[in-house]
Amino acid sequence: MTVKLTISYDGTDYVGWQSQKNGVSVQDVLEDALEKVVKKRIRITGSGRTDAGVHALGQTASFSTDAPVPPERYYLALNAVLPKNIRVFKSERAADGFNARFSAKKKTYRYSAYVSEVSNPLLDRYALRLDEMPNIEKMKKCAKFFLGEHDLKSFSSTGSAVKTTVRTIYSVDIKAEDNKISIDVCGNGFLYNTVRIIAGTIFAYAFGKICDNDVIAALNGEKRPAACKTLAANGLTLLSVDYD
Amino acid sequence: MTVKLTISYDGTDYVGWQSQKNGVSVQDVLEDALEKVVKKRIRITGSGRTDAGVHALGQTASFSTDAPVPPERYYLALNAVLPKNIRVFKSERAADGFNARFSAKKKTYRYSAYVSEVSNPLLDRYALRLDEMPNIEKMKKCAKFFLGEHDLKSFSSTGSAVKTTVRTIYSVDIKAEDNKISIDVCGNGFLYNTVRIIAGTIFAYAFGKICDNDVIAALNGEKRPAACKTLAANGLTLLSVDYD
Repeated sequence: MTVKLTISYDGTDYVGWQSQKNGVSVQDVLEDALEKVVKKRIRITGSGRTDAGVHALGQTASFSTDAPVPPERYYLALNAVLPKNIRVFKSERAADGFNARFSAKKKTYRYSAYVSEVSNPLLDRYALRLDEMPNIEKMKKCAKFFLGEHDLKSFSSTGSAVKTTVRTIYSVDIKAEDNKISIDVCGNGFLYNTVRIIAGTIFAYAFGKICDNDVIAALNGEKRPAACKTLAANGLTLLSVDYD
Repeated sequence: MTVKLTISYDGTDYVGWQSQKNGVSVQDVLEDALEKVVKKRIRITGSGRTDAGVHALGQTASFSTDAPVPPERYYLALNAVLPKNIRVFKSERAADGFNARFSAKKKTYRYSAYVSEVSNPLLDRYALRLDEMPNIEKMKKCAKFFLGEHDLKSFSSTGSAVKTTVRTIYSVDIKAEDNKISIDVCGNGFLYNTVRIIAGTIFAYAFGKICDNDVIAALNGEKRPAACKTLAANGLTLLSVDYD
């Protein structure tokens, strides 16, 4: 039987989703918890990696098992042994052949920021501090450049081997309330660091550090300007992963 | 010269505002930082204690010094040596005789909660989880009982020696958005645990565990019902302290 999990975590204290030699990953901790539940080591496949320090509200994962546990009960059993910074919100039986990574159709990430001269200890864990308020209308204008199918190779960090660097972005929503700003990016998939770089590009544009042509040229494969930074991991949260 | 500070902190890792034998307090850390800045140990007076685990967005404090530091520069000097979970937002010269505790006229606290069957790692640090949505209209109705001058001795925990247990509550504002709920309580001062107990009483009323007469009787000095719990510290944040 294939079981699908929907998982939330505070990524602050983890090296990311994926198992690594140098530190504790969310995947490690989940596999440890599952081993306690089914008395057997089982590999859990995530919808994709999240980097060190990145958070998740709706990460998804799947595993195959013949353990006699009703699939909709796994979340309770896992939460009973997981640390509080990782919670399974839902567990359910998935169709045969379901794979959290390869069956994923859409992912939505949120990049969060706030404006303050001094860093705010109550916001710092989940958002990037900006010195001044960006122009929100310019942010919305820049967001539109990314819509549709593009080769995003100029908006990624080297490090992952992928077959194609072409992805489709379905929406980029900018919201601002008081001193808080969020950028929600939904696409059929993302390259390494792409959402953090898109967010960095949108802020660079809104602060007047780059212009239309810089964004258009980078979407056409040219090297992106240095101002389009990879923003800090703690501002990024994987909101949801959608399947058919 | 008297200097007034406005301070924000994540209270998770502290024993509270006030210096204590068994653990690190926000006051200790601030006094250590000030000692590094002025090369002398100076006592810092907070507007009041916040308990272990309680957060602050706008705690205030004052100290007297003859150090040759411009008062409006202390926040920069202190932030340079403070840990990131404590930040000074503002420093300013206060009138002679100003005392952050005794000069305070109003304090506003927020109690935050969210509704979810499973705890949410991204909300847990600053809010209490509720199993189900309370009746918001009933919360607003209960809030009104607290407005005005009352003897709040039934809404406090024993432990603090105070001259009078009469306090004036200026406002109790209930807000709900999606699955998040906040209770903002503003008054001329509060007894030990009072805001956490008022919030616990409002939820108990909204869930139908207590009725009008229970609240009215407790405000008239009778023992409050057991359902009016002292809610968890992590949901409480001191928003601001006002002076003339």
